[in-house]
Amino acid sequence: MGKLVIVGTVAFDEIETPFGKTDKILGGAATFIGLAASQFNVDSTIVSIVGDDLPKAYLNLLSSKGINISGIEIVQGGKTFYWKGKYHNDLNSRDTLITELNTLADFKPVVPDNYKDADIVMLGNLHPIVQLSVINQMTQRPKLIVLDTMNFWMDNAFKELTEVIKRIDVITINDEEARQLTNEYSLVKAAQKIHTMGPQYVVIKKGEHGALLFHHGNVFFAPALPLEEVFDPTGAGDTFAGGFVGYLAATGDISFESMKKAVIHGSNLASFSVEKFGTERMESLKRDEVDKRLHQFKTLTQFDIELK
Amino acid sequence: MGKLVIVGTVAFDEIETPFGKTDKILGGAATFIGLAASQFNVDSTIVSIVGDDLPKAYLNLLSSKGINISGIEIVQGGKTFYWKGKYHNDLNSRDTLITELNTLADFKPVVPDNYKDADIVMLGNLHPIVQLSVINQMTQRPKLIVLDTMNFWMDNAFKELTEVIKRIDVITINDEEARQLTNEYSLVKAAQKIHTMGPQYVVIKKGEHGALLFHHGNVFFAPALPLEEVFDPTGAGDTFAGGFVGYLAATGDISFESMKKAVIHGSNLASFSVEKFGTERMESLKRDEVDKRLHQFKTLTQFDIELK
Repeated sequence: MGKLVIVGTVAFDEIETPFGKTDKILGGAATFIGLAASQFNVDSTIVSIVGDDLPKAYLNLLSSKGINISGIEIVQGGKTFYWKGKYHNDLNSRDTLITELNTLADFKPVVPDNYKDADIVMLGNLHPIVQLSVINQMTQRPKLIVLDTMNFWMDNAFKELTEVIKRIDVITINDEEARQLTNEYSLVKAAQKIHTMGPQYVVIKKGEHGALLFHHGNVFFAPALPLEEVFDPTGAGDTFAGGFVGYLAATGDISFESMKKAVIHGSNLASFSVEKFGTERMESLKRDEVDKRLHQFKTLTQFDIELK
Repeated sequence: MGKLVIVGTVAFDEIETPFGKTDKILGGAATFIGLAASQFNVDSTIVSIVGDDLPKAYLNLLSSKGINISGIEIVQGGKTFYWKGKYHNDLNSRDTLITELNTLADFKPVVPDNYKDADIVMLGNLHPIVQLSVINQMTQRPKLIVLDTMNFWMDNAFKELTEVIKRIDVITINDEEARQLTNEYSLVKAAQKIHTMGPQYVVIKKGEHGALLFHHGNVFFAPALPLEEVFDPTGAGDTFAGGFVGYLAATGDISFESMKKAVIHGSNLASFSVEKFGTERMESLKRDEVDKRLHQFKTLTQFDIELK
């Protein structure tokens, strides 16, 4: 059972989609990553910060999934990071209505001592300086450091971002961000350029169009499962990342062949996450549902052409 | 060796992309479909109309690929259909600068007698009334009728389009067109609705994002090969369709399993077509190049997860 450190937000989300809206509910990158990774046999901890306004039930939920929460700092009298957003009709784009950093503004992550030798570190989307400080706390180089980031840091902390990118093994970003980071429109060329910046593995997330895994000359594609209805895309990318690192941590195998399976597991879990608001679907997700949908992934993509 | 009837334009294209521009060169849906299908062991004919301004060399090229051209009417003193377009920087959208129907305005397709019992009919993008007249000329119901169409006919000849859609087995359209045709955003729901309109198989082309094949509850996904450079997307959809029908005609097997392979062959050939202007790449394409890239498709998509 591999040890996994997950760094990221545990947050309040308030979401509006064409199908309805929520009050403040549990959200945050680390939450979605943790819930997805908990589908695998891993020993994971979340490193984050919240205010004491976060319902205890949310932390209990994470614990109940076997996630160590000793790395979540609870600031007495503080307020939890809060994001409010509204999706457009096609669910492919959204407007951020409110972002309140609150306690996150002063987040100094502390990796619990017994996780400083973790096998895998998953750096959820955060300020690159925060991500770097986590890497620096590890007492031995993890087998794999995975980074998620977004265009906001490319615009506002590019130098720091390139510093952390140098130190990691796998980057997960979306297609537009890959283009912005490299000034290359072709994703093949973008991945090549990112390799030279540090990461030997590049995962480009294309939302409903699936995800590409690049490792120098090798490329693998995992489709998104075509769904009748996408209800709420919030957290889909983090769920994907959580499935990816969860599988790798559980197997201990970080070869390219293993990563191919890991992106399929990530896609599979993300296909559930979008079926209900927030974390609702992931909270109730059962192993046999996961296994059943893996069959669908196989049917969706596997063919048998006699090659010469 | 199955018999294949291809109906569609043989045309002059004039193309501008970020990488350069052409003079009037050989284009047209039937041209691309025919060239792609000629990669397989098929007895195909093109049913089309051109003016005597079309260089004889273009027709000779088609003949040299084993395509019967007795169904291409040459109008003495007439001018060939002419399209001029300019692609935007990302190559995902284009502006049509000139469309001259010329001889195409009075196209009355005539299927050569010895192809009226063809196994497969491929109806390239044309006025639905022209497409219908081809179906009506067949002396026996083909094993498979495949239709390509576009939003222009949904806007301008919807009733006639629904008439031809009732009579066919496979429709190939792009994602936006599938949404327009059905008023469903979800492609899964769009395909379900299209099934009720007639076609038992629905192929939704997503360009650089691949293609989906639907057959009632079954769905299969063929990715597009991630390319370093797309040079000219003109004809990619028709090349895809040509590979699809060419494979099916050559094997005579129109089962869903066979169609899965057919969409992979279609994607594979389309990945070559976009590498050079117009038909240039398809003209020189060799069997061993095709086979080699099929290996890449397999590597790109095949994984080995132990299913429970």
